[in-house]
Amino acid sequence: MNPGNLAGMRAVVITEYGDVDVLQVQEVPAPVPGPDEVLVEVMASAMNRADLLQRAGQYPAPGPQPEYEVPGLEFSGTIAAVGSQVVSWSPGDAVMGIVSGGAMAEMLVTHERMLQPVPGSVGLADAAGIPEVFMTAHDALVSQGMLTSGRRALVHAGASGVGTASIQICQAIGAEIAVTCSTNKVGACSDLGAHLVVDYSKDDFVDAVGDWTGGGGVDVVLDVIGGEYLVRNIRCLKTQGRIVQVGVMGEAVASFPLGALLPKRASLIGTVLRSRPLEQKIDANQRFLSELLPRFDDGTLRPVIDSRYALEDIAEAHNYMATNGNIGKILIDI
Amino acid sequence: MNPGNLAGMRAVVITEYGDVDVLQVQEVPAPVPGPDEVLVEVMASAMNRADLLQRAGQYPAPGPQPEYEVPGLEFSGTIAAVGSQVVSWSPGDAVMGIVSGGAMAEMLVTHERMLQPVPGSVGLADAAGIPEVFMTAHDALVSQGMLTSGRRALVHAGASGVGTASIQICQAIGAEIAVTCSTNKVGACSDLGAHLVVDYSKDDFVDAVGDWTGGGGVDVVLDVIGGEYLVRNIRCLKTQGRIVQVGVMGEAVASFPLGALLPKRASLIGTVLRSRPLEQKIDANQRFLSELLPRFDDGTLRPVIDSRYALEDIAEAHNYMATNGNIGKILIDI
Repeated sequence: MNPGNLAGMRAVVITEYGDVDVLQVQEVPAPVPGPDEVLVEVMASAMNRADLLQRAGQYPAPGPQPEYEVPGLEFSGTIAAVGSQVVSWSPGDAVMGIVSGGAMAEMLVTHERMLQPVPGSVGLADAAGIPEVFMTAHDALVSQGMLTSGRRALVHAGASGVGTASIQICQAIGAEIAVTCSTNKVGACSDLGAHLVVDYSKDDFVDAVGDWTGGGGVDVVLDVIGGEYLVRNIRCLKTQGRIVQVGVMGEAVASFPLGALLPKRASLIGTVLRSRPLEQKIDANQRFLSELLPRFDDGTLRPVIDSRYALEDIAEAHNYMATNGNIGKILIDI
Repeated sequence: MNPGNLAGMRAVVITEYGDVDVLQVQEVPAPVPGPDEVLVEVMASAMNRADLLQRAGQYPAPGPQPEYEVPGLEFSGTIAAVGSQVVSWSPGDAVMGIVSGGAMAEMLVTHERMLQPVPGSVGLADAAGIPEVFMTAHDALVSQGMLTSGRRALVHAGASGVGTASIQICQAIGAEIAVTCSTNKVGACSDLGAHLVVDYSKDDFVDAVGDWTGGGGVDVVLDVIGGEYLVRNIRCLKTQGRIVQVGVMGEAVASFPLGALLPKRASLIGTVLRSRPLEQKIDANQRFLSELLPRFDDGTLRPVIDSRYALEDIAEAHNYMATNGNIGKILIDI
């Protein structure tokens, strides 16, 4: 690489914080890899709910602010060049991974230990739908929630990217899973293998989980909702159960009887991937490589793709995600 | 032992749930040890705030309800007899420990692996002030809070039994500790070695902890208060910090911005010792033996005794504990 290379590339730029019209495809300088980084020619990126928050100015990127704020938390693509100290990758390798921003662009740089090889079972253009949701679900359910074979999880928003990944991960590790979703997504969650699907418009998930577990409760709750779900999540927990809070939607203030955590000796764990320091992100990435990647290779796990948008149609993709209509991932072709 | 031995003993009995006059010293049948249990002649027991709850019917004992509800969560005394499978103890040994009830009586039985030898540095009558608060503080701060040398803790009610044990444990392991207390207890907390003592009637602990940590926050909060302390505890936390909730006082409903846990990736852990299954209590007991008992033997740790009451004066002891006037433990001589 020529470190002085300031060749341009097309990228989505958040020109200011606001509605979807702040998203513009612009020509910006291409990034240059450091010694332990690689330059990736991006084939696809994917939407996450955090993109909507970031566009509104409610999800600031960690670290020094770049001149151009380019969204995009995950990607698939081909290695274009490697830094001088890179040992594991070569130009031409098909890779995917998470980044803390910048994936909705023709090129990006990332640390070599943050990369993942694209599984043989998955096309390069679809692989962008894997990293963020499978790493988030695996980190929340298994690494932090300590879910194992024989145990049970409750995951809200079962048809979301994280939800569809959670259902597959539970299948893959021999755990049982209950999910909540709206009426029109019940079939998709069942087809993916959820053991209990609660239509939240018809049934109370506390009652449904109580029946399902014979009153014993679940070991782990993965929640992205918050608010009044908190007290109900606690009621769904088994003794020493864990609630892993991956996000909150709408009203973020939760009122709950704090004392209810004590007799159950329950834990409430807040988590987020993006703001972690590099070493912790690498750790999560390496666990993904060891524990999940082989299950993509053998065909057990697969990305669930809802729809694809061209880079130029990024505003449409944002509007669509805001409707909660998707089942699985919304991909962006670069 | 003669399993048919139904000799009587004096014990505090909770005759019904209510005010202190429900506490009566009565003659009840002495317990009989099973094969892996020991019979202890109790020399002293000690008060815990849970005793006040139990008297009011708000802290039910785990397991089958005994004919006589005898309170008392800890004791010191001498082994009177051992069951047929007991390998570690002999009659005459000076012991202490926690039990899930029954310690405010002349005799009690407990599992042999739940016993602790009385440290050479501590008199037998004072040793009853050790087990509950040192095990609770160690379990909360170290086992669950993962406090280590170099890290920082915030502990509320610094002059309480758990507070005074926490200050000493932090000293013993090389951690720093901030405590909160009322004006008249500031001196005692400082004398015990707290690095920061916040008089809650004068200063806001969030500001004080912020100044003390240069804005970085503490690794662990041990809280027994709950309510509106929750949101303030979260503000005191460092990234990946933990709040270990050992109890709640007064209004138990807490309102807090659940989303505040996420950027800090903080955990809120509810805990209680009494309702744990035997194997988990033994585990906590064995950690106490390995990690804290040697520090009593070398004189680093010591029970902090506030006052002593005779068994007959148990109602007075309850009234005194309810005033929050104590610094350290209120012992009951059997």
